[in-house]
Amino acid sequence: MALRHYTLDFSLSAAVDPATAVPDLLSIFHEQEMTETVHDTDGHGYLATLVGKNGRLVILRVHTHGLVTIDLQCYEQDNISQLDNLLNALEKKLKALLNGNITRIKRLPALIRGAKVDRYWPTADGRLIEYDIDRVVYEADSAYQNIKILHSQQFGNILVLNGDVNLAESDLAYTQAIMGSGNVSYAGKEVLILGGGDGGILAEVVKQKPKMITMVEIDQKVIDGCKVHMRKTCGNILDNLKGDCYQILVEDCVPVLKKYVEKGKMFDYVINDLTAIPISTEPEEDTMWEFLRLILDLSIKVLHPSGKYFTQGNSVNLTEALTLYEEQLGKLSCPVDFSKEVVCVPSYLELWVFYTIWKK
Amino acid sequence: MALRHYTLDFSLSAAVDPATAVPDLLSIFHEQEMTETVHDTDGHGYLATLVGKNGRLVILRVHTHGLVTIDLQCYEQDNISQLDNLLNALEKKLKALLNGNITRIKRLPALIRGAKVDRYWPTADGRLIEYDIDRVVYEADSAYQNIKILHSQQFGNILVLNGDVNLAESDLAYTQAIMGSGNVSYAGKEVLILGGGDGGILAEVVKQKPKMITMVEIDQKVIDGCKVHMRKTCGNILDNLKGDCYQILVEDCVPVLKKYVEKGKMFDYVINDLTAIPISTEPEEDTMWEFLRLILDLSIKVLHPSGKYFTQGNSVNLTEALTLYEEQLGKLSCPVDFSKEVVCVPSYLELWVFYTIWKK
Repeated sequence: MALRHYTLDFSLSAAVDPATAVPDLLSIFHEQEMTETVHDTDGHGYLATLVGKNGRLVILRVHTHGLVTIDLQCYEQDNISQLDNLLNALEKKLKALLNGNITRIKRLPALIRGAKVDRYWPTADGRLIEYDIDRVVYEADSAYQNIKILHSQQFGNILVLNGDVNLAESDLAYTQAIMGSGNVSYAGKEVLILGGGDGGILAEVVKQKPKMITMVEIDQKVIDGCKVHMRKTCGNILDNLKGDCYQILVEDCVPVLKKYVEKGKMFDYVINDLTAIPISTEPEEDTMWEFLRLILDLSIKVLHPSGKYFTQGNSVNLTEALTLYEEQLGKLSCPVDFSKEVVCVPSYLELWVFYTIWKK
Repeated sequence: MALRHYTLDFSLSAAVDPATAVPDLLSIFHEQEMTETVHDTDGHGYLATLVGKNGRLVILRVHTHGLVTIDLQCYEQDNISQLDNLLNALEKKLKALLNGNITRIKRLPALIRGAKVDRYWPTADGRLIEYDIDRVVYEADSAYQNIKILHSQQFGNILVLNGDVNLAESDLAYTQAIMGSGNVSYAGKEVLILGGGDGGILAEVVKQKPKMITMVEIDQKVIDGCKVHMRKTCGNILDNLKGDCYQILVEDCVPVLKKYVEKGKMFDYVINDLTAIPISTEPEEDTMWEFLRLILDLSIKVLHPSGKYFTQGNSVNLTEALTLYEEQLGKLSCPVDFSKEVVCVPSYLELWVFYTIWKK
């Protein structure tokens, strides 16, 4: 039983005396059989909390600097149209009372709190985003991560790993970008995919008839979920771990890469689909940067001199993280050059940076 | 001075007795010199409001059905890292207290209420969306609408008409879609654009060397704003109302269309960029449907028998609105066929439907 949380805010060009607005608003709440407690705010404006039937709660604040905020909480099985009417009445009354003093009226879609299906998945750059998610189609905890596949009306199924939106069935743009945006041909080539458990890259590269693709994905449970629920992304490619021109190794890629380095094995293209780049240098992210450097160094070692390494970066807005990453690229044992591209991946709801890296 | 509104919610697998969680939480608030009022909820769980220094307010609810919700409101100039620490302490304490009973912990990015620059522009399908908007670059009220041009870090400037996100500088995908997604050539053709005040369509069609483009935009103030602040979209095309192969009529398109019908003037392509289709048949939208039918009927009348009419629909999620529109297409005086396409327009943060319509 979720909580619906409505907000209705009036921004004003000048502060308003609570005495002019409060009594009329309270009378609207009294009609709803709500009773108020007025709090002492120590000079920070008028604040009343009103409790009503069925768990309804209202917070009414007339701030000292030209802002009136109203919060209304109710349970989801409450009479929603009655509450819409209440909000309409409040909005109408405030419009009349504050006439000429209003710079903005903001009534946001209700925040749904504690719902069975969670619709709020913030962007990488930390913005509040509500998705059109209506059901959970797969959930598993593996040894490595929490795996969810959620259904979105517009994006199809979305793979969410540890709370991060990874890829939706609508996101061919992601796969095309991390494959080099159509600027390279995979025909007859040796290709290494790191991660990629949703099967999207594998399914697209296979179409170009490469010589051999090796995909190294650590998490069988990601493959298990995606091969059933992300078929618009992976087709039938995950149904078998081996095909005419591909093999999937369900292993940690680090020892695999080390073995390839040792054996002198080389690839024309390495596609790193493991994770977005860390977003800070905070201590808790240190191990992520180390991991990133390790993968990068090993990958460049197995890259053919004329080969290309492709990877995702992060949100275009996280300029500091992107700069940190580019600094890392300047510090590799083998000198590299890079280019980057900004791409719109439909389900991300933010623009995303992709890198192409090659040996100098 | 905006209000920052934090939420921290714990979903539980079983209801929890407030007595087990509340005292420890209150002690955290007491350390912050907050004092509580406990409210009678008539059997709807535990509810306390806590008022602190500097206008801080906390709502603590232990609901009867396995949900704990915490709201924290503070002013934007408050000590944010101190408040982050408070939320961290609450989260840690609740994790320990409710250990084994937690199904989800949700701590959303703070909602910023009453800010100078508003970042919340819900999608057409009614979802709560926070944009990365950092400043208002243009605002005007014309005789027809409120016009805002807002700066987004990732999308560039965004044109917002009456609160609806219209087009951002990142949105070439919109312009390409409403021009027929590259499936038609405008070279040597007669083209009519209805609306289009941002200049995006005009700027792109001109590149294809049509015979003549006539654009009919009612609102000079849209043109005034866009020609300065949307130059990545319109280039210099709006600097003059007339060019080698185009003219801009700053007029209501209805009498213009009627005049064209009367004179028997025909166009190879008509691009209707006026507005998204109405989303319901509620009485207040009746006039919008009438307007839409009128424009559609007149447009088809001025369309060459082998011509195409292009228009935007609405969010792919508004299936009812799209169906209503398609029903209208079946009722025109001149029978038409149509196709539709779903397109990702970067700044919309929802997939959008575009229509191509032609005479049977």
